[in-house]
Amino acid sequence: MEYRIEKDTMGPVEVPAEKYWGAQTQRSVNNFKIGGPKHQMPLEIVHAFAILKKSAALTNADLGVLDQEKASIIAKVCDEILEGKLDDQFPLVVWQTGSGTQSNMNVNEVVAYRAHVLLGGSLQDEKKKVHPNDDVNKSQSSNDTFPTAMHIAAYKMVAATTLPGVQKLRDTLKAKSEAFMDVVKIGRTHFMDATPLTLGQEFSGYVAQLDHAMRAIKNTLPHLSELALGGTAVGTGLNTPKGYAEKVAEKIAHFSGNPFITAPNKFESLAAHDAMVETHGALKQLAVSLMKIANDIRMLSSGPRSGIGELLIPENEPGSSIMPGKVNPTQAEAMTMVCAQVIGNDTAVSVGGANGHFELNVFKPMMVNNLLSSARLLGDACVSFNDNCAIGIEPNKPFIQRHLENSLMLVTALNTHIGYENAAKIAKKAHKEGTSLRDAAIALDLLTSEQFDEWVKPEDMTGSMK
Amino acid sequence: MEYRIEKDTMGPVEVPAEKYWGAQTQRSVNNFKIGGPKHQMPLEIVHAFAILKKSAALTNADLGVLDQEKASIIAKVCDEILEGKLDDQFPLVVWQTGSGTQSNMNVNEVVAYRAHVLLGGSLQDEKKKVHPNDDVNKSQSSNDTFPTAMHIAAYKMVAATTLPGVQKLRDTLKAKSEAFMDVVKIGRTHFMDATPLTLGQEFSGYVAQLDHAMRAIKNTLPHLSELALGGTAVGTGLNTPKGYAEKVAEKIAHFSGNPFITAPNKFESLAAHDAMVETHGALKQLAVSLMKIANDIRMLSSGPRSGIGELLIPENEPGSSIMPGKVNPTQAEAMTMVCAQVIGNDTAVSVGGANGHFELNVFKPMMVNNLLSSARLLGDACVSFNDNCAIGIEPNKPFIQRHLENSLMLVTALNTHIGYENAAKIAKKAHKEGTSLRDAAIALDLLTSEQFDEWVKPEDMTGSMK
Amino acid sequence: MEYRIEKDTMGPVEVPAEKYWGAQTQRSVNNFKIGGPKHQMPLEIVHAFAILKKSAALTNADLGVLDQEKASIIAKVCDEILEGKLDDQFPLVVWQTGSGTQSNMNVNEVVAYRAHVLLGGSLQDEKKKVHPNDDVNKSQSSNDTFPTAMHIAAYKMVAATTLPGVQKLRDTLKAKSEAFMDVVKIGRTHFMDATPLTLGQEFSGYVAQLDHAMRAIKNTLPHLSELALGGTAVGTGLNTPKGYAEKVAEKIAHFSGNPFITAPNKFESLAAHDAMVETHGALKQLAVSLMKIANDIRMLSSGPRSGIGELLIPENEPGSSIMPGKVNPTQAEAMTMVCAQVIGNDTAVSVGGANGHFELNVFKPMMVNNLLSSARLLGDACVSFNDNCAIGIEPNKPFIQRHLENSLMLVTALNTHIGYENAAKIAKKAHKEGTSLRDAAIALDLLTSEQFDEWVKPEDMTGSMK
Amino acid sequence: MEYRIEKDTMGPVEVPAEKYWGAQTQRSVNNFKIGGPKHQMPLEIVHAFAILKKSAALTNADLGVLDQEKASIIAKVCDEILEGKLDDQFPLVVWQTGSGTQSNMNVNEVVAYRAHVLLGGSLQDEKKKVHPNDDVNKSQSSNDTFPTAMHIAAYKMVAATTLPGVQKLRDTLKAKSEAFMDVVKIGRTHFMDATPLTLGQEFSGYVAQLDHAMRAIKNTLPHLSELALGGTAVGTGLNTPKGYAEKVAEKIAHFSGNPFITAPNKFESLAAHDAMVETHGALKQLAVSLMKIANDIRMLSSGPRSGIGELLIPENEPGSSIMPGKVNPTQAEAMTMVCAQVIGNDTAVSVGGANGHFELNVFKPMMVNNLLSSARLLGDACVSFNDNCAIGIEPNKPFIQRHLENSLMLVTALNTHIGYENAAKIAKKAHKEGTSLRDAAIALDLLTSEQFDEWVKPEDMTGSMK
Repeated sequence: MEYRIEKDTMGPVEVPAEKYWGAQTQRSVNNFKIGGPKHQMPLEIVHAFAILKKSAALTNADLGVLDQEKASIIAKVCDEILEGKLDDQFPLVVWQTGSGTQSNMNVNEVVAYRAHVLLGGSLQDEKKKVHPNDDVNKSQSSNDTFPTAMHIAAYKMVAATTLPGVQKLRDTLKAKSEAFMDVVKIGRTHFMDATPLTLGQEFSGYVAQLDHAMRAIKNTLPHLSELALGGTAVGTGLNTPKGYAEKVAEKIAHFSGNPFITAPNKFESLAAHDAMVETHGALKQLAVSLMKIANDIRMLSSGPRSGIGELLIPENEPGSSIMPGKVNPTQAEAMTMVCAQVIGNDTAVSVGGANGHFELNVFKPMMVNNLLSSARLLGDACVSFNDNCAIGIEPNKPFIQRHLENSLMLVTALNTHIGYENAAKIAKKAHKEGTSLRDAAIALDLLTSEQFDEWVKPEDMTGSMK
Repeated sequence: MEYRIEKDTMGPVEVPAEKYWGAQTQRSVNNFKIGGPKHQMPLEIVHAFAILKKSAALTNADLGVLDQEKASIIAKVCDEILEGKLDDQFPLVVWQTGSGTQSNMNVNEVVAYRAHVLLGGSLQDEKKKVHPNDDVNKSQSSNDTFPTAMHIAAYKMVAATTLPGVQKLRDTLKAKSEAFMDVVKIGRTHFMDATPLTLGQEFSGYVAQLDHAMRAIKNTLPHLSELALGGTAVGTGLNTPKGYAEKVAEKIAHFSGNPFITAPNKFESLAAHDAMVETHGALKQLAVSLMKIANDIRMLSSGPRSGIGELLIPENEPGSSIMPGKVNPTQAEAMTMVCAQVIGNDTAVSVGGANGHFELNVFKPMMVNNLLSSARLLGDACVSFNDNCAIGIEPNKPFIQRHLENSLMLVTALNTHIGYENAAKIAKKAHKEGTSLRDAAIALDLLTSEQFDEWVKPEDMTGSMK
Repeated sequence: MEYRIEKDTMGPVEVPAEKYWGAQTQRSVNNFKIGGPKHQMPLEIVHAFAILKKSAALTNADLGVLDQEKASIIAKVCDEILEGKLDDQFPLVVWQTGSGTQSNMNVNEVVAYRAHVLLGGSLQDEKKKVHPNDDVNKSQSSNDTFPTAMHIAAYKMVAATTLPGVQKLRDTLKAKSEAFMDVVKIGRTHFMDATPLTLGQEFSGYVAQLDHAMRAIKNTLPHLSELALGGTAVGTGLNTPKGYAEKVAEKIAHFSGNPFITAPNKFESLAAHDAMVETHGALKQLAVSLMKIANDIRMLSSGPRSGIGELLIPENEPGSSIMPGKVNPTQAEAMTMVCAQVIGNDTAVSVGGANGHFELNVFKPMMVNNLLSSARLLGDACVSFNDNCAIGIEPNKPFIQRHLENSLMLVTALNTHIGYENAAKIAKKAHKEGTSLRDAAIALDLLTSEQFDEWVKPEDMTGSMK
Repeated sequence: MEYRIEKDTMGPVEVPAEKYWGAQTQRSVNNFKIGGPKHQMPLEIVHAFAILKKSAALTNADLGVLDQEKASIIAKVCDEILEGKLDDQFPLVVWQTGSGTQSNMNVNEVVAYRAHVLLGGSLQDEKKKVHPNDDVNKSQSSNDTFPTAMHIAAYKMVAATTLPGVQKLRDTLKAKSEAFMDVVKIGRTHFMDATPLTLGQEFSGYVAQLDHAMRAIKNTLPHLSELALGGTAVGTGLNTPKGYAEKVAEKIAHFSGNPFITAPNKFESLAAHDAMVETHGALKQLAVSLMKIANDIRMLSSGPRSGIGELLIPENEPGSSIMPGKVNPTQAEAMTMVCAQVIGNDTAVSVGGANGHFELNVFKPMMVNNLLSSARLLGDACVSFNDNCAIGIEPNKPFIQRHLENSLMLVTALNTHIGYENAAKIAKKAHKEGTSLRDAAIALDLLTSEQFDEWVKPEDMTGSMK
């Protein structure tokens, strides 16, 4: 590869000749060989930075601290980044400085040098027409830009991927719940036969879980909407013009389409990332909900002959490389793996959040990487589960009916007529002798056949909550 | 010990003669010897059950399914429980059936048998005047009572212990923030010297963290206010009279003083405990915040001679059994240990929440035990930290002043005057040669002594955010 | 309550008149009101301290730095502690100073003052004949004694409670595995029907898991056998006589009955608690294993009529307060709750372990409290699960046989005769039409009835691994 | 893109015309759009499969169940995979079926179809000369191949990346420990000044931690060396020739260069992944150790003027985009972020490990993805930290000396001469009045100046452990 020489305050560095980045980016490439390509700083952060840098440049120009031409060209490069044209200019990994300074500088350098080229310069020029620090980073510090980019990227991922994904699955489950509202089936508690409910009722619980999870996630968005920008190095706003913080937040809100505001307390925004902890906590709650739901569907569709078998799920692919004809609940498996990962990521985010010191938390890239990853995985998994499984779920009525008829727990309907202890005698006798409840009840002389028919009606046992 | 014989549907059991509990409680005592006395079901759960059983009895009577006299005597025993008179009647441990059935039966038995005695009967009577299942548990199932008790106990602990504890600490930190608002000090990012801020600003970040944490906790209370009661065995409300769920929730709200409502979806309330996950998630966020704050205070008060030493904290006890005169930040240590525990408890709660099956989650006692423990530990630790540390925090002004004066990062104020790269030259020269910034600046001919004095004023560098 | 006045280097404190503890213990009582009685420092730590203090006193006497009479009386009080006679003298909670200094001083004070009384003095005497620091704590610091007590207590709990508990359950499962080795049953992968195996083979997997878990735990014991004692304040051994560290470790090994040695590197022993992390990590692995096993048994015994139903487990207690005759897998539930807790505790231990600073980790009481709790819960739960569930497990042969006969996955035996794709055709046809594999195979003309009988023998499909 | 049609037992699928994969791979591409490119199945797993498939083919040929020509061509394609020539043929993500069946089929298809092409066929041919299931997957099931690939890949990553990385850092720290063995410095406990030790002693603790961590990791390798292959679908070895399991493990050991053996119990190997849990647990312990070490180095090098400042670390890059001349402990930050991630990953692995059912754990891809990621991150981070930080660490002697001289905790040396309480008086007086210990001691008339000089020698206070 060919190289050119770039300099920063520490001296010269060899940089790939064709790349827009400069000395500081290259130092990070050289010094942090950790994890490989899968561990690159998420492009969502880079794109968030583009919105940020554009907003800052325009605000700086408005406030008279950056000349208009520079602001315009900076904004133009940022638009190129947002169009994905410069995606290969951001080589850094997550495992770098904990403030994300190097990724901030990567963006500063790429924007400055690309601007220089757009203005007719060459990458070989020692002096560029736009300066990474003095122009692109004007009125900024890594310490307030990186958290701002974290919030921009995280808010978008949650709002545009997670929540719509969950909503889609929730709506399907809601439709199923309504469609199955009259399918009476046996309930199961402790994994053991219990009193009946309808399949629609069972699914309504899933809908309620997802409604709660979405509400919990939305509750965290106000915190996520607070932007650190304007705090600069330690939260005091040193080197920013008056009114800058509010104006730049408005511009970011405008360009991103999300309701960002300037953080009322910048010290918190730099020193802590409780907003990440808060949102990820809600994502973890969603993971807990989805794991329960996916497990239920996996178990209810077990079989086809020796399981519970009350649900039929779509057959999407051959299930086994050795067992011909096998079909597996693979979407439930992908989902539960995602959920386990999100539960783990939550621990990582908590450890990072708890270990900030003084004016700066330096677990930023790790924290946002987990949040973006969890938010996307959950959103994607909901859509995948929805499209390839949930929408095709149907009741397996013969199995449902057989289980219902056999159930001993219908005896519960007799409690209010003959008391818990007499009812228990009937259930135990039927269980021990392998007979029906009715036969056991009559043999014990506790009621008549007519009373049994009148009192034990599964469909009546599901009633009050429909 | 003397024993009497009690029976349940499985047959006779020997029970300590003087105890009010019956056969089912005793079976649990016999079958679950796990963990010892520290692992007993929290008394908060027992007391929540007392509110529940009283409310249920009165509602049952109102709705005509329980006779008034029985309801009255049940209510009376529940009041005794709430007064703490029967605390030694609840011997079961957390590690029992995952539905908490045995603790529900423990309460049912104690209430029934104590009622029997109050009505003039003897514990030796084979037949008691009040029946644990048919009377005390009327219109109930463990599956809806235990989650209801979970919510009653958890809501109370959070509202009466956690939040007031945090508020107390928050108010102290707020007062400190105001008192210290003009104490200019060096900032620290990456644990390294940075631009200045005031000590009051630094503390304002803590206040903002705790405000966010309290808001996050309060956001979870609506979910926690939903009561499962009325769902009975699987959420359908089998064996409950019409209107029961709403009425009993009103009574529980009345007797507890907290704004409980009947859960809109009972299937979710039994099968999942996402409300526990949600509230504990917010407690975990608080733990993350408190760990950051306590660490900062521990580190800022380090020394007395070879640390950072900018804060003075109360000297509460001799710090060392071998090093005479040593004083340690012990409150910060207790606090951070609590925080680590809460972060761990959160994982346990998540694992439990994710593993519910079908109509019932059977990790109930474990989940609520963690929530009650975390909520109390955090509340207690905040009060302890407040009373024994935070209220006595004072700035160590000589240390603060010395650090501020020595700081190289004041150079940042020069960026807007001479550019980032020139400013860096000054800082590097001063650092390398161990001189002051002013001397280095002048030696480099980058500005005059007068300009230095005009541009580099620490107090001006903290300004825009006060 | 009546009080007496005790003094320490900070001045006088009121202490309950009858208690043996002194000023420093009382300060901790006053300053750390966190969590209540359930959060008291584990008695196992107190008893470990008794072994330690006795060993140290005798070693000090041997080495000529403590007079023999003092050593004898100290040893005598330690024996009283070990007999449980002074259990009510240790009121401190876990949530105190993170070095455990206050619990070390609690022991020092109780030993000194009880010794003073045994020597004829009175608790009211201002000057005691044995000094908590200069005599009982001789050649020691909290910083090396508390970690030593952690290791003594943890080793004992693991060796005397956890491992025997697991071994007991493992032996039962091994016996079941052998007893069930010829019970051919359907296998299940992805919770779906798969090729057959024997019930004994299935149980052999559990045995292998527990064997691996026990080996993993035992692998951690050498680290746990290293004692910090002799390192004193920061690991250098300041104020200890020559040869002390080795001799005192020998005595502790002798009195405890466990193979303790002096740690080769004392700096590690004070500053880090990786031994706790290591052992708890192995306990967490055991929890993971047990959760799998308990889940399997819970699911295999599900029913009684509408589940999998292949295992019969003991009926220990009525399962429901509303559903008469219900029996639940309660031991599996207690076990899986314990496992979830241990997984959570592991996170807490990791957070504590990762946050030590310089010469001392100050998450000691929290870490050991979790380790002791997890180790005991796992041991107890294994015994409970063994005695009340595992030993009574029997195969439900009619269910097993029915599932086996119905299985479509027996078709796998045909792969080597007619190829995977043809075999798949048979399975799919049988599944779709609800017929037997044999009928489908013959209808498809892929083999003869005789060939089917010869090739598809479930018992032959389980063979190579018996 | 152009497509061709491939078929499996479920029917035809459109596959990109130029790709070697077939219908089942494509179904997974279509059905699991979760997470994007960063979430692809690790290539380490694909390469492990290549070793496996080659070993299986050759063993099958040796045992007479696969013809020699097919075995040879299969082996040849596997070699191409191992050379990295087919890396773009494995498009599947981690979030697929939990058994990894689809990745097994991806390898089966690519090997079969590439073999077909090498044998002169065309991808357009409907019938290929080598069959994915009947030939490439001969004597195998996803259920035993995927766990085998997990172990092959994990063992290699741990042995070739993690352990050498840790060893490298450990050796550097050991050399530093020796080089710094006479640099006497103040100790710190509770983040507060304590008695002295040498910098070499301090570093020796880090060495001991890493030695313990490496031993703990190595302890887990025997479990990781057990291969599931030969168990096929449920562990019974159905459809494998006699002697196959042992022979194929030998070949895998040979081709991989690692000491693999056939698992003594195949049921455990499929149904549980405790080996993953065990190894990841040890990696987590390493993360805990590294977090402690990196934190210490970050804190000891804090400053340059207002921190602890006892260590000098290499200046690798400009530390701030706004603060000129700032240098930060960036390697420590990358390291501690990695550690936080590993602690989180451990939770994910535990959740996955605990949730296996019956004959198969279906969290396989998630578990191994975390293990490979953690193992690599730790190894890489150790090398990065070593090369860019540890090797350049030097003591900052002026700071060290100043801290040592000022220390009040040198008073501890007086305990054995004048008693703990008198020593405390001296320390307290000096602290209060801001004087030296000597002045305070003499003013209190507790000893002479000569005695002070004789008794208080910092270098003598570090002695017994050197």
